[in-house]
This record gives sequence, C-alpha cells and structure tokens, in this order.
Amino acid sequence: MKNRSGLTAWMVAMLFLVPASFVWAQASSDEKPFAEAHVILQLSDQEREAVVLDTANNLIKHYGGPDFIDIEIIAFGPGVRLLFAESEHQTRIDSLIENGVRFYICENTLDTMERKTGVRPEVIPRAIPVQTGVAHILEKVAEGYTLVRP
Amino acid sequence: MKNRSGLTAWMVAMLFLVPASFVWAQASSDEKPFAEAHVILQLSDQEREAVVLDTANNLIKHYGGPDFIDIEIIAFGPGVRLLFAESEHQTRIDSLIENGVRFYICENTLDTMERKTGVRPEVIPRAIPVQTGVAHILEKVAEGYTLVRP
Amino acid sequence: MKNRSGLTAWMVAMLFLVPASFVWAQASSDEKPFAEAHVILQLSDQEREAVVLDTANNLIKHYGGPDFIDIEIIAFGPGVRLLFAESEHQTRIDSLIENGVRFYICENTLDTMERKTGVRPEVIPRAIPVQTGVAHILEKVAEGYTLVRP
Repeated sequence: MKNRSGLTAWMVAMLFLVPASFVWAQASSDEKPFAEAHVILQLSDQEREAVVLDTANNLIKHYGGPDFIDIEIIAFGPGVRLLFAESEHQTRIDSLIENGVRFYICENTLDTMERKTGVRPEVIPRAIPVQTGVAHILEKVAEGYTLVRP
Repeated sequence: MKNRSGLTAWMVAMLFLVPASFVWAQASSDEKPFAEAHVILQLSDQEREAVVLDTANNLIKHYGGPDFIDIEIIAFGPGVRLLFAESEHQTRIDSLIENGVRFYICENTLDTMERKTGVRPEVIPRAIPVQTGVAHILEKVAEGYTLVRP
Repeated sequence: MKNRSGLTAWMVAMLFLVPASFVWAQASSDEKPFAEAHVILQLSDQEREAVVLDTANNLIKHYGGPDFIDIEIIAFGPGVRLLFAESEHQTRIDSLIENGVRFYICENTLDTMERKTGVRPEVIPRAIPVQTGVAHILEKVAEGYTLVRP
C-alpha cells in the first residue's frame, strides 16, 4: 500500500514538475519547434548593423542550420536605420528572413523621427512594428529569450 | 484510499511548486506591488544619458503608468555624470523619481574619480549609492530584474 | 495511513523539487564551488578593454575574494585584441587568470581577420578558444550565468 501511494505521489509530482521546468527552460516559437536556443539581438547603434547581421549568420551556422536556433532582431533608436526602405543591407536581411529570423522595429523611434523631421521614414515591408522596443525585449526575456547586444 | 493519498500528494506538490515558480517568475518591489515587469537600465556611457531617460519614459507610457512597471537605473563608469549635482537632466530625473524610478550610482567610480582629480564629484542627493555597480546588477538580476543597456 | 502516504508524497516532491530549483538557481563551476554569483562579461569593443578588466577586479574585491565570484570574459569582434600576444594588458590578464577568471576568444572573429589580412593573429596561450562568441554566451546563460556588457 505504501508503495502504491508512493507511486501515485511520484506521478503527481511529475505531472507538475515536468511542465513547470519546461516553461522555464524553453521559450516557445511556433516557427522554430526544434530550436536549441532563443535569442533576441539588440540593435540600437547604427554602427553595429553589420555586427548584428554577422552574429545572426554565425549563430545559424553554429547551430547547424536555421531550424536549430530561434533569432529575433529588435531595432530601436539609431538602430532602426537598418530597416529603412533604402537599406544597404537589404539582401542580407532578406536572406535572414528566409531563414526564419524576425526583424522588429520600434514605432516610438519612428514617431520621434517624424516629429523632428516632418516625414515618417519608410521602412521595409517585412519589418514587424512594435510600439516600444525595450518593452518588446522585456516580453521576450519573460518568454525565455536571451538578450544579447552584440 | 488510493484517491485520498493521491489528493494528499497533489496538495503537497502544490505546496512546493507554487512558491517555487513564484520566486522565479517575479521580482518583488515593495514600492511597485502591481508592476508587470522589473527592469534595470544600465548607463555606462555618457552619450547614452538621453537614451536611458527616454527609455524609462517610454516604458512608463507603454505599461500604462508608473505603477505597472518597476524601473531602476544604475550609473557607473562615465555614466555617473548623469547624476552629478550640476546635471543638465535634473528636471527629467526628478520627474522620473516622482514616478518611482530609482537611480543608483557606483561608489567605485566616484572613488576612482576622486583619486585621479583630488576632488570627489558632488552628486544629486536622491541618487542611491552602491559600492560596485555591476555587483548591484547581479543582485537585481538574481531577484528577477531584466538587465537592459539601451 | 493517510499521514504515512502524505509523508511519502512530501519526500517524493522534495526529491524532484530540490534538484530542480538548484539547477535554476545556481550555475555550476568546478573551479568555484563557493561562488555567490556567476557572471560572463562581454568584450566586443576595443575601447572597453580597461573597463572590462576593472569590472572583473572590482567584482573580486566586492565579493571578498576570487573564491566567491565566478567570472568569465568572452572576447569577440574588435574585443579579441585584448587577448593578442602583444597585449598591453598582459600583466592584469595574468593576475585575473591566477584568480580563476577564464578568458574566452571567438574563433569566428579570428577566421575573419585571417581571411582579410592573410595572417592569423597570434593570441596569448591561456585564452580559451570557442568557435562562436555569442553561442558561448547563450550556453553560459542557459547554465545560469548573468551576461553583463560593461
């Protein structure tokens, strides 16, 4: 009898513990079910554009392909210029998007630029708008993403 | 009988699991009991002063008011100048402090400056001194804060 | 009987929960069994060399000696120059290594430099090579290290 109730306890404990540790250990990404790591790369300096794109490419190589690493890039402040319509990095950006990398752009930054210049900068259509860049980071870290600012 | 001991196991498991996940999920802040997120903003470059203050303001707006976001700013290295007595940002700093933002300043940095110049810089009275800026960051991250360097 | 099965449940729950929280709370480091915190310092800008070394020294002082703080430094991009054979910081690096600080260097960066200049830079022998700097960061953060970019 003791053994059976011990077994029940074991099973009940497993029931809770496995999902709990799963939530903690792993960010979920519908597009990257096999990702071994989840990273959000911060681009907030214009001069780091190439470094951020290089980092994304190196990570995809390192993990053995785009299915095994889940990468987001969040651009805010002077970093948003990477995603302007006339970006010199358009080819590399397209190639990363084909590999499942998501590019987010901060609307607050664009609002400020529009207020100062009278013109809202045109951004590439595949950039995903978020209102507040750092708030997006906080949400992603809460989901289990690691923030790196290369 | 099996059901009752199963129920006991369930309750015992809950007893442990709920507090455990609570500790992990949530930083505590006496001043911000309703905060949805806890962030520590790193200011270690003088040229990022405005960006850090903007970020704090944008977060307060994004979360719908100062009660819903818990913000600390830690200044060290060249970043401490933000909190010097003659800071040009005094009005913005005061307004953020009214909204519950805490400004910490690294004493090691001030010690070094005093050693080099013979004069200890005067800082605004509401800056909270900590001995080692990065150690403060490590403590806060251990409590559940997310470190962002805007 | 109910009490005994409750006790069993308790013990089983403990069996799982204690190791689970241990894994989360604490990065393990064979060389630093008494460390109170585990930090990985990112050096990716040449002009931050001194700041990163100062941070490591300040942390060792702050925690009361090298046994109580576990520090790694990962150099990539322009940051790798810190670990070149002719580094001006050699004495400070040696002293930190004596105190158990590990210095990692990104091979991808060295590969790129070699491709561009035709010569592979010579690095100090005690630098530990890793293929991809940011992948090393992701692994360490998954183990419980806190990433700081001073």
